[in-house]
Amino acid sequence: MAPSEYTRMVLSERPKALVNEQTLRKETVPFDLKPGLHEAVVKVIYNSIDPTMRNWMSDARSYLPPVKIGEVMRAIGVGIVVDPGSESKLKKGDYVAGMPGLQEYAIMKDDEANKFDLVPGAEPIDYLGPLGPTGGLTAYVGLFEIGKIKAGETIVVSAAGGAVGSLVSQFAKKAGARVVGIVGSDEKVEWLKKDVGVDFAFNYKSPTWKDDFTKEVGFTDVYFDNVGGDISAFIYTRMNTFGRVAFCGAITEYNGEDSPGLKNYVQIVLQRLTVQGFIVTDHQSEFEKASKQIASWLADGSIKRRYHIVNGLDKAAEAINLLFSGNNSGKVILAVSDPQAKF
Amino acid sequence: MAPSEYTRMVLSERPKALVNEQTLRKETVPFDLKPGLHEAVVKVIYNSIDPTMRNWMSDARSYLPPVKIGEVMRAIGVGIVVDPGSESKLKKGDYVAGMPGLQEYAIMKDDEANKFDLVPGAEPIDYLGPLGPTGGLTAYVGLFEIGKIKAGETIVVSAAGGAVGSLVSQFAKKAGARVVGIVGSDEKVEWLKKDVGVDFAFNYKSPTWKDDFTKEVGFTDVYFDNVGGDISAFIYTRMNTFGRVAFCGAITEYNGEDSPGLKNYVQIVLQRLTVQGFIVTDHQSEFEKASKQIASWLADGSIKRRYHIVNGLDKAAEAINLLFSGNNSGKVILAVSDPQAKF
Repeated sequence: MAPSEYTRMVLSERPKALVNEQTLRKETVPFDLKPGLHEAVVKVIYNSIDPTMRNWMSDARSYLPPVKIGEVMRAIGVGIVVDPGSESKLKKGDYVAGMPGLQEYAIMKDDEANKFDLVPGAEPIDYLGPLGPTGGLTAYVGLFEIGKIKAGETIVVSAAGGAVGSLVSQFAKKAGARVVGIVGSDEKVEWLKKDVGVDFAFNYKSPTWKDDFTKEVGFTDVYFDNVGGDISAFIYTRMNTFGRVAFCGAITEYNGEDSPGLKNYVQIVLQRLTVQGFIVTDHQSEFEKASKQIASWLADGSIKRRYHIVNGLDKAAEAINLLFSGNNSGKVILAVSDPQAKF
Repeated sequence: MAPSEYTRMVLSERPKALVNEQTLRKETVPFDLKPGLHEAVVKVIYNSIDPTMRNWMSDARSYLPPVKIGEVMRAIGVGIVVDPGSESKLKKGDYVAGMPGLQEYAIMKDDEANKFDLVPGAEPIDYLGPLGPTGGLTAYVGLFEIGKIKAGETIVVSAAGGAVGSLVSQFAKKAGARVVGIVGSDEKVEWLKKDVGVDFAFNYKSPTWKDDFTKEVGFTDVYFDNVGGDISAFIYTRMNTFGRVAFCGAITEYNGEDSPGLKNYVQIVLQRLTVQGFIVTDHQSEFEKASKQIASWLADGSIKRRYHIVNGLDKAAEAINLLFSGNNSGKVILAVSDPQAKF
């Protein structure tokens, strides 16, 4: 039975730096959701918490319009159809992925709700991870389409313990590359080396990591960049001639206007690098191929993933900031509602 | 008749910032140049003075090894063969282009000396300009191969009054693009608008140039970057989605280690830009096609060029610094010897 009310998180004010208590406001509103033609009411199970949400909060030119003040905060998520509208292709009980926003229930249009059947070895949460746009799909597109990794090459992955980086690292190993992960804790270094199976991993908080990198790794052909900032400034000096930078994100740049800038970018000329920024949604034509490949790896159990699950919509701001402090272990997921509960 | 001695400029010490009086040392040495097998003695007429010479002076990883202390300073130039060695393909009186260095006479190997016959509308100096590697060939490769300019697109050219930028601007107009030049003086703005025929030109020393640009130009598809620094930081915010940056040089970055970094590089992700660094010598397979095209434009008189000629080898340091102060008007050329003089 439908509840009498539900909760949602709206953008209350635009953050100047980090997201804070004033940024998002929890609203409890009457449950009056009626699906229209080709729509369905979806109960959100999990939201994906992604660095780019910080961009969506800013009133600046970006690849999507900013979320308006007072609107439900935009967020990727998976859910279950509880009330399909007339002529909807969706049925009650269908799993769907899309952009329901930070709320318990969302009305989603048929063409914005990607119905999925669980593939062998996968759970619903994996459709935000290895099979999700800000997880495996971004990793796949960035590694193969943008970074053009080839067997025998070296790749450096920043934020290699994170949602995208940990999958890039694994896909690159499968592609026969030498993989170097950069992370922010010794625990993540261990996880990458022992569980994920990278060739090298460095904790950028170690005072000797740059020297260690230079001695042990030398140079790299591809840099999968999730962070920007000081780490990138160093890696740009360790690129082989004609190297490629798959520029996926710059988490160091999202929290305000006082960007220090990318040092050593002159290496782009000196080593004739190609730096290409990308957003996964521009590459939808690759999704089917990528999803099939990733599903096959999930089926054989060879993909490691870690989720850092934060419980409850009202913890959304906290969950977002985990990404910027680097205190997350694995992909940050907001658990919104019990997937087993009725309606 | 051969002279009894000749002069040359050797690298005396590595500059920390700008090239100074101590950087290059003039040597007068006995004329004892004897061409070997497949070599020739070449009398240098002009040296090309290029920003990248500052890179060659640094003991840092680059696309060519650094010039050693005490070695003749590396420089592109044109000259005339005065003494061909045995089995040389070169003949006395042949014009050649190559890398003779900063000196009155050089021994050049056959395969490093590009013999040329003057094409209609060209003089020897033009083989350092529109037909030279650090002039027209760089402009052509960067514009068409890297920037992939198409008719109807907009291109912004930094250092648009310089050796490369002024030719990029003209080639881009011929390709049907809307051309925007950025320069450092009102005089250059006028020259670009009236003589070169660009659509817009801005003096970056004007306090309103960014606002003017935003209002008048809006956004651009291609950025041909010769400078880096603050100009680039701004232009990166004015790129259309999927724009291309042909990154030719970063003159603001060559004079020491205290680079401020490239601000706004996060736009590479947000607008999905491709930034590609290039060095013309990687693109030799394009030279024949490019040279033919440029020669045809020279023949019809439609290519404007300006040379800033500095007389005498001992003015080399001064000539190099003209590039970094931006006080040059056009391509900086060092006139080394009288092209009409015998031997």
